[in-house]
Amino acid sequence: MTEPRTAVLVPAAGRGERLGPGAPKALRLLGGVPMLVHAVRALAASRAVDLVVVAAPEGDVDEVSTMLANQVDSAEVTIVSGGDTRQGSVARALIALPDDVDVVLVHDAARPLVPAELVSAVVAAVRGGHSAVVPGLAVVDTMKRIDEADDVADTIDRSTLRAIQTPQGFTRAVLQQAHALADDDATDDAGLVERLGLSVHVIPGHEEAFKVTRPFDILVAEAVLARRRAAGAV
Amino acid sequence: MTEPRTAVLVPAAGRGERLGPGAPKALRLLGGVPMLVHAVRALAASRAVDLVVVAAPEGDVDEVSTMLANQVDSAEVTIVSGGDTRQGSVARALIALPDDVDVVLVHDAARPLVPAELVSAVVAAVRGGHSAVVPGLAVVDTMKRIDEADDVADTIDRSTLRAIQTPQGFTRAVLQQAHALADDDATDDAGLVERLGLSVHVIPGHEEAFKVTRPFDILVAEAVLARRRAAGAV
Repeated sequence: MTEPRTAVLVPAAGRGERLGPGAPKALRLLGGVPMLVHAVRALAASRAVDLVVVAAPEGDVDEVSTMLANQVDSAEVTIVSGGDTRQGSVARALIALPDDVDVVLVHDAARPLVPAELVSAVVAAVRGGHSAVVPGLAVVDTMKRIDEADDVADTIDRSTLRAIQTPQGFTRAVLQQAHALADDDATDDAGLVERLGLSVHVIPGHEEAFKVTRPFDILVAEAVLARRRAAGAV
Repeated sequence: MTEPRTAVLVPAAGRGERLGPGAPKALRLLGGVPMLVHAVRALAASRAVDLVVVAAPEGDVDEVSTMLANQVDSAEVTIVSGGDTRQGSVARALIALPDDVDVVLVHDAARPLVPAELVSAVVAAVRGGHSAVVPGLAVVDTMKRIDEADDVADTIDRSTLRAIQTPQGFTRAVLQQAHALADDDATDDAGLVERLGLSVHVIPGHEEAFKVTRPFDILVAEAVLARRRAAGAV
């Protein structure tokens, strides 16, 4: 009898995963390497991860398989054909999981520089007894809510606010249950678990797990990569 | 009769303006130049700004005056002795304003790379009829509220949330009234205006107006400076 294993699902197929018209944002280059490759390398760099399942656009499975071949040797990498939506992709990746996987993370390919320590911390929190775990960062700026006229409606207490990142981690049973009941295209897996009335635990996030969506984020990502290169870390 | 003028107050004296123990964070170096110098240059680079008033720590007025001498020629720069709190510093800077100033901005020295266009946009919005104006950015990450056990209490609707930046702009009368009634050490001038029941308008913020508080932010700031240097902008 072998130990139960941990998998990370990376939905990279749906419309929501596209950066404007054209290529999926997961294929956007950072330091000459597609974001998806950075992300898969980062996830596999955690010793807590045994398997990475990427949901690729239906017509691009072969291309993505080639792109990811021989990129990592510390974890198994599987490519599946994704759905039209993020949720459809997670569902198809869930079906592809071997039976011996009992902890499942879901990671956004648009967070390509997630540190391996954060990935491991999420797994550890799930294995430590929390059936749903998300990383979150404290909020630095004052937060206000606006009305239709762009006037301030309210200033929010930010002390208990957290900006949520990925990977989000779950027991396999909880993630499957949450997705089975999902009736719309949620972008936040933990939110589905909350709707079940189950508890979601927040652990400290990491600044380098930021989401790359705007041109400014590319500048920041390149700076992080340059610093890692200078430190001999990549 | 001359045109009414626009001033920017920069509180850089209080305990809240210190980055850990030791030097005020405004004196922290970025690319070899103190953040406060970057901030004052950035504010003066807006043609809408006539006067910059810096509130320096009580014992450091001479040093800060020397540091800022001859840094800008497009705006008048005045140094005053600040108070123990941010609010005390704003109050002392307000008193120091000449009579012909009718629009007053307050800027956080920890946002040293604010683009001149953003400063000008704040002034334009105040002169256009909004008596209180703040820049705000849409929120990229899912936002959740946590409870005492670090479990998720609630997922927040982020579509109407804005991460508020500075400079915040006001008619002089409104800012004076707000500060006269303030009874604690608020860190957000617009929040004081909201308490008066007056309307605060939100205009689009700018990614480069981010707050430099953590080591990661220094990395980002250096990357922005390097890009500006490469573009010949500084």
